[in-house]
Amino acid sequence: MNAYILNKLPVIEKALDDSFTSDIPETERIVQSMKYSLMAGGKRIRPVLCLAACEMFSDQQDPSPAIHAAVSLEMIHTMSLIHDDLPAMDNDDLRRGKPTNHVVYGDDIAILAGDALLSQSFQNVAQNTVGVDPARVLDVVIRLGKCVGPVGLAGGQVMDLICEGKGDDVSLQDLQWIHTHKTATLLMASVACGAILGGATPEEVEACEQFALKIGLAFQVADDILDCTASTEELGKTAGKDENVDKTTYPKLLGMDGARAEAEQLVAEAKQAMEPFGERATALLALADFIIDRKN
Amino acid sequence: MNAYILNKLPVIEKALDDSFTSDIPETERIVQSMKYSLMAGGKRIRPVLCLAACEMFSDQQDPSPAIHAAVSLEMIHTMSLIHDDLPAMDNDDLRRGKPTNHVVYGDDIAILAGDALLSQSFQNVAQNTVGVDPARVLDVVIRLGKCVGPVGLAGGQVMDLICEGKGDDVSLQDLQWIHTHKTATLLMASVACGAILGGATPEEVEACEQFALKIGLAFQVADDILDCTASTEELGKTAGKDENVDKTTYPKLLGMDGARAEAEQLVAEAKQAMEPFGERATALLALADFIIDRKN
Repeated sequence: MNAYILNKLPVIEKALDDSFTSDIPETERIVQSMKYSLMAGGKRIRPVLCLAACEMFSDQQDPSPAIHAAVSLEMIHTMSLIHDDLPAMDNDDLRRGKPTNHVVYGDDIAILAGDALLSQSFQNVAQNTVGVDPARVLDVVIRLGKCVGPVGLAGGQVMDLICEGKGDDVSLQDLQWIHTHKTATLLMASVACGAILGGATPEEVEACEQFALKIGLAFQVADDILDCTASTEELGKTAGKDENVDKTTYPKLLGMDGARAEAEQLVAEAKQAMEPFGERATALLALADFIIDRKN
Repeated sequence: MNAYILNKLPVIEKALDDSFTSDIPETERIVQSMKYSLMAGGKRIRPVLCLAACEMFSDQQDPSPAIHAAVSLEMIHTMSLIHDDLPAMDNDDLRRGKPTNHVVYGDDIAILAGDALLSQSFQNVAQNTVGVDPARVLDVVIRLGKCVGPVGLAGGQVMDLICEGKGDDVSLQDLQWIHTHKTATLLMASVACGAILGGATPEEVEACEQFALKIGLAFQVADDILDCTASTEELGKTAGKDENVDKTTYPKLLGMDGARAEAEQLVAEAKQAMEPFGERATALLALADFIIDRKN
């Protein structure tokens, strides 16, 4: 595991847990369902990227000005996992080695828990981010909103569904559009929100976004490769699923070696975008390596 | 139809339509699905309440400082309708006289269209509200977020699902909790957001919220009464559905006359909350009458 992630995980886990303070008995069930998925572990890549980007521009670390944005990013990511796993979508029973949310709570509550996590993500960052110019917090809200909508997670997922039925007619361009929007936009928002809350200029935010776009695509290529090569036990989710549903993947379009080369190229471009920041970018660069080298 | 609503509808419909400017071909399908439900008509009660509340405190009318908040409120309401209608939830095929979103686009796209509308609602109000102190816009974001989460729409819906199986064990208190959170909180947010963007003080915002809480509950009592008395054709949705699924309703707990009296009492309390505003509250008071007198 990456040292920076290991260092930040306890802070992030605590902030995630602290984000639920409700003790209203009527909300017990939905809060249980939300926490079941939000607190299910995982590498917390998005919160870590957010905190690392913030630290490039701000000296304040404990608490980071971006800690609540980091929590909101994980809430959004968790919402997308809960909804993607539904029988009406990918119909997955297993996630991070545990039964998926709808298996435990039912499809209806899983849908509502996702909706609640999504709305709470906006409330959380707007309500709890203190000591930052409100205009910067609004900018964060805008970016979080954009990365879920038609040019974000949901739009990417719909294009993915449309392309699933098209078999070999899916081009590399389609695949890149899907992954840019399904995966990369949330990573772009992660570093952009961190940078903005740390005080970055628009140009600096833009450089961070380029970095994350490239990492995001590399992340997805690595995921496609892992789906072909790792076992269900190693992944903590159903392996070989892409091939089972005849899904277009990078290994399929480029071959396994081609996909590996593509991932390396993307990581190189990501690192290049960080060059202006020199030493300050050390944590983000190590995270880029971690993403391409990860075994699960 | 209420005169204030008739007056505001063209402005609201145009603002709703204008909120989609994307011409990216890859987003065509999801945007179609979002617009299908968002532009399906309806009384636009929430946007109208938002604009009317704003006008109590601001002279600026065209455009209203609250027009984008009004659009966001309708996006949130539409998301909740799309998700509620899903087979995994209420399983309704008909809404406003048209096939529901998932009947036309499939369950998967309907779920994603709801997610996209929800996230776009936050982006929209944060990005497009101009000429207002950013701290006030953040306050609006917080209230919109809260009214969808565990102490809002989603929490109310989960309690509703839990109570559906309990038959006669559901108390009037449970029913009020459900309707406060399923229905009233979004109306409260509608007037609160309008008032805040119009420049209201916290005490004025609080009075508007009390008004909307009472209207919201009255609205739900009226809805329960209509479900018992109106035909499917009149409603534009399946009538008698509550009784079919053995749902606890106000008429069931209080009798039809008791339910009617409860609705009138709630409207009287709503009007009382508006007394401090005198003439300025005329539009909101007429809306309260419209809500209790509506035939569909």
